[in-house]
Amino acid sequence: MAEKVLGVLGGMGPLASAQFMVRLTLLTPAERDQEHIPTVLWSDPRVPDRTAARLGGGEDPLPALLRGLRGLEAAGCGAVAIPCNTAHGWFAPMQTATRLPILHIVEAAAADLRRQGVAPGPIGVMGTAATLAMGLYQEGLAGAGWDCLVPTSVEMARLVTPAIAEVKANRVTEAYAPLAEAARALAARGARAVVLGCTEIPLGIAAGPALPFPVVDTIDALARAAIGWARAPDSI
Amino acid sequence: MAEKVLGVLGGMGPLASAQFMVRLTLLTPAERDQEHIPTVLWSDPRVPDRTAARLGGGEDPLPALLRGLRGLEAAGCGAVAIPCNTAHGWFAPMQTATRLPILHIVEAAAADLRRQGVAPGPIGVMGTAATLAMGLYQEGLAGAGWDCLVPTSVEMARLVTPAIAEVKANRVTEAYAPLAEAARALAARGARAVVLGCTEIPLGIAAGPALPFPVVDTIDALARAAIGWARAPDSI
Repeated sequence: MAEKVLGVLGGMGPLASAQFMVRLTLLTPAERDQEHIPTVLWSDPRVPDRTAARLGGGEDPLPALLRGLRGLEAAGCGAVAIPCNTAHGWFAPMQTATRLPILHIVEAAAADLRRQGVAPGPIGVMGTAATLAMGLYQEGLAGAGWDCLVPTSVEMARLVTPAIAEVKANRVTEAYAPLAEAARALAARGARAVVLGCTEIPLGIAAGPALPFPVVDTIDALARAAIGWARAPDSI
Repeated sequence: MAEKVLGVLGGMGPLASAQFMVRLTLLTPAERDQEHIPTVLWSDPRVPDRTAARLGGGEDPLPALLRGLRGLEAAGCGAVAIPCNTAHGWFAPMQTATRLPILHIVEAAAADLRRQGVAPGPIGVMGTAATLAMGLYQEGLAGAGWDCLVPTSVEMARLVTPAIAEVKANRVTEAYAPLAEAARALAARGARAVVLGCTEIPLGIAAGPALPFPVVDTIDALARAAIGWARAPDSI
């Protein structure tokens, strides 16, 4: 394990990737520094807004993403985790451009649904408007039998999108109430669990009382996938 | 600001440098991702134990520290923060070996004492046995008129050293009581404030009720120094 170095392409947003580092550390079984996972975090919050690029003709983030991947390659990393769901809209061109395996956040979320024993059937997914519009989770989870309910466009505009912006502006506490309301609405429509499919969302949800149904924290899910990679003796 | 990239030489311990990233983000005034500070965190928990090297003839950490500095240089960083107090025992050879300015954690702590209005006179300093033995704070703060009280050797062996190890093993909650007891003992002996001069210590202290006297969190102090560097238009 000691010689495998994890690369983290982060900064999208910066608080989410910082929290990814915290959770990666706390979820790693270790008794001393030297048993933790060597990691290089490339936190580049200058990457152009992924949602604006996908939905509004904003600047393409791919060049900045590829710069980060090259930086992680040069640093000696053996695999890459990207704690930003929307950035996975560029997964294919990123994976084509690097020899490093990229751990896919939707696969990590699916593994966490299984870990929590969530049976096939209706689940909820919250995310940026771009993540939902591109069907990242709807397509990624359909094969395993999970049917994704998503917030209505009114719920997105009134609750989810503003709350994500609050977290990016460091107003984490203010994000709890709108995010919890949107998650409860999905549960009321039949979701057996809710995937927090934008890494800002678990930061807001953690600022208040726990929700009374299973949630998949995609920061934690990706951290668990990264630990699995680092600890597998014969992994990629 | 946007083109200045902060380098963080971390992993000593990994939870402290992850928390440094969280605090760096939360202390930065920003309304959206793109206003945060681009940062590369080189989190290498394999760096040999600093205290064992200084006090017990353990393996020299300097080669690993220099590898990290070279990685941060190659990544395009413009300055380096090291969220590990004991590693500052190798400050001079590190600064000699890199063209990047290293932000000194003791200077950051002094700036935070001033920010909190702590007058010259007796203050307390907690840290690893190595940090205290090398006089990092005692010498670094004497010129400004702060006289450093340190825990007794019995307090170190019974309270501070085991609590630091608890944090490194992810048992943060268990570290609060012994660390708070050691800090209160310094206050009882006349300390007007207590410097948490090991970056594991503020993690433990944050796990319980706030102490009834000023404390300098060296994670926060170093984050404030880094933000000052990043935001200064004409800085080094």
